[in-house]
Amino acid sequence: MTCKKVVIALGGNALQEKGTPPTAEAQLDVVRRTCEHLADLIDNYEMAIVHGNGPQVGRIALTHELAFQADPNLPAMPFDVCGSMSQGYIGYQIQQCLRDAIRNRNRDIPVVTILTQVVVDKNDPAFQNPTKPIGAFFTEEEAKKLTREKGYVMKEDAGRGWRRYVASPNPLRITEIDSIKRLWDTTIVVTGGGGGIPVAENMDGSLTGVPAVIDKDMTAELLAEDIRTDYLLILTNVERISINYNKPNQKELSHLTMRDAVRYVEEGHFAPGSMLPKVMAAIKFVRRFPDKRAIITSLDKALDALRGNSGTFFSMS
Amino acid sequence: MTCKKVVIALGGNALQEKGTPPTAEAQLDVVRRTCEHLADLIDNYEMAIVHGNGPQVGRIALTHELAFQADPNLPAMPFDVCGSMSQGYIGYQIQQCLRDAIRNRNRDIPVVTILTQVVVDKNDPAFQNPTKPIGAFFTEEEAKKLTREKGYVMKEDAGRGWRRYVASPNPLRITEIDSIKRLWDTTIVVTGGGGGIPVAENMDGSLTGVPAVIDKDMTAELLAEDIRTDYLLILTNVERISINYNKPNQKELSHLTMRDAVRYVEEGHFAPGSMLPKVMAAIKFVRRFPDKRAIITSLDKALDALRGNSGTFFSMS
Repeated sequence: MTCKKVVIALGGNALQEKGTPPTAEAQLDVVRRTCEHLADLIDNYEMAIVHGNGPQVGRIALTHELAFQADPNLPAMPFDVCGSMSQGYIGYQIQQCLRDAIRNRNRDIPVVTILTQVVVDKNDPAFQNPTKPIGAFFTEEEAKKLTREKGYVMKEDAGRGWRRYVASPNPLRITEIDSIKRLWDTTIVVTGGGGGIPVAENMDGSLTGVPAVIDKDMTAELLAEDIRTDYLLILTNVERISINYNKPNQKELSHLTMRDAVRYVEEGHFAPGSMLPKVMAAIKFVRRFPDKRAIITSLDKALDALRGNSGTFFSMS
Repeated sequence: MTCKKVVIALGGNALQEKGTPPTAEAQLDVVRRTCEHLADLIDNYEMAIVHGNGPQVGRIALTHELAFQADPNLPAMPFDVCGSMSQGYIGYQIQQCLRDAIRNRNRDIPVVTILTQVVVDKNDPAFQNPTKPIGAFFTEEEAKKLTREKGYVMKEDAGRGWRRYVASPNPLRITEIDSIKRLWDTTIVVTGGGGGIPVAENMDGSLTGVPAVIDKDMTAELLAEDIRTDYLLILTNVERISINYNKPNQKELSHLTMRDAVRYVEEGHFAPGSMLPKVMAAIKFVRRFPDKRAIITSLDKALDALRGNSGTFFSMS
């Protein structure tokens, strides 16, 4: 039997539970449960895993900022380096737990994390209007100093103080794609963590890390295009997406054609920074490969959804 | 032409310069120069790279400890997780700079970092006598509390306060070895960073991270055995190793037989935690494969040494 190919985008709830402390130990427990669900797919699907890193990379940045205030020998880290650390942290836990979950099923499939740089366009319009807050809160005076000295974009954040904002540009290219392809047939690869470490290409073709947050659903979509997988599977905290969300006329959707999907996006049914990027990634993938499917569902419904019995699936018509 | 295979162990001076601030920016400059030297090898050698992480992982642990004191929402990280973060941080810089250095030579060889877990024995005698200090200094009272509450081994450190000590056990198995082998022919793999994330195997075969520091030279040796490389190349800050180091009768060695090497080790010529583990790794590799070579030299002499014109090379007789 030929396995179907799937790229899985893991949302924040697959790594951390609301209301529990943000410790590595608590995260490991959640990751272990997540990996049990993922391991249920191994008999029928070849997969790669792209995970988010929002809370983790934010804490890594903040941790270094606070430690630097306590001890100037512990320098703050550039945001791309924080991203690389978060790929190390989260990738390690997934690769350890998924290996164990697969072994529990008497299978032996290697799981590895590949550190991933994702190229963005320095002229991406997103850089004109940074939308992602990261790290600590500062006073207005400190904020102006940071802008002056480091060029940070600082904005006042809902009365809580001033924060650094970074852009969320589109992913253009996965630098390590050759190695991911080479491993695909035999190995589960954890890649593009947090959307990838954002890098820009210089005139001479060399790469430089940039302070930005790439949407991990868009990076998962790019990977699914590169591999030409059968499915792009975006996992979140609801079984199906809804229109008129949280209103009396809320309606769950089990199937969306491109025409309806675009219409609902235009009507503003999906929250920016939450469901909207997932829907946009699904639309992009199905437009690129009209015979393939994108699915949005919850972790525990992943297998059902791939079999067509749950989730919201996107198709051309 | 068939390329010779080499595992390269990079010492701390390949990542950081003495006397410069421990920032990611300063480290990137050093890594860039290091990668220029490594790129000089690509025409004649297939390589994998194992790097140290001592100062980096220590700072990551300390950074999280200090930040936690400032904000209890930023938890301290278990030491295995700190190791995974350091693999992310350092691997990212090496993979970015080495790719650029190779492209500058009009070649196109992928460079990827694979997060690496290395299995150690829970009953390794090293765990009876932890020798590696990590993280912050504490008062005696705080130290006793940490021992009571977390089981840390705390020791008084030369009058500067109390510190946590972790063991330095032997590496037994590289968990991700299959993927490293699969990539070897086409790709430069950065792996086993900091000696690998130390994990212990439980009764059921699952893995659990343990607080330990694996010597990166011993992990490089294990990788060289697994791949059966032609060379184990250990790079440090001297061109050749010496006996009677820093004494009037200091003597540089260009060649060591196993018999002489063992004798010099027994006579205490090589400093523990510095040259000794490098020499021990070299001895282990040549004993395992008597027709192969181990070399200890400096980064800028790497190519010369592989050609037999520099460094200290180890052979059976």
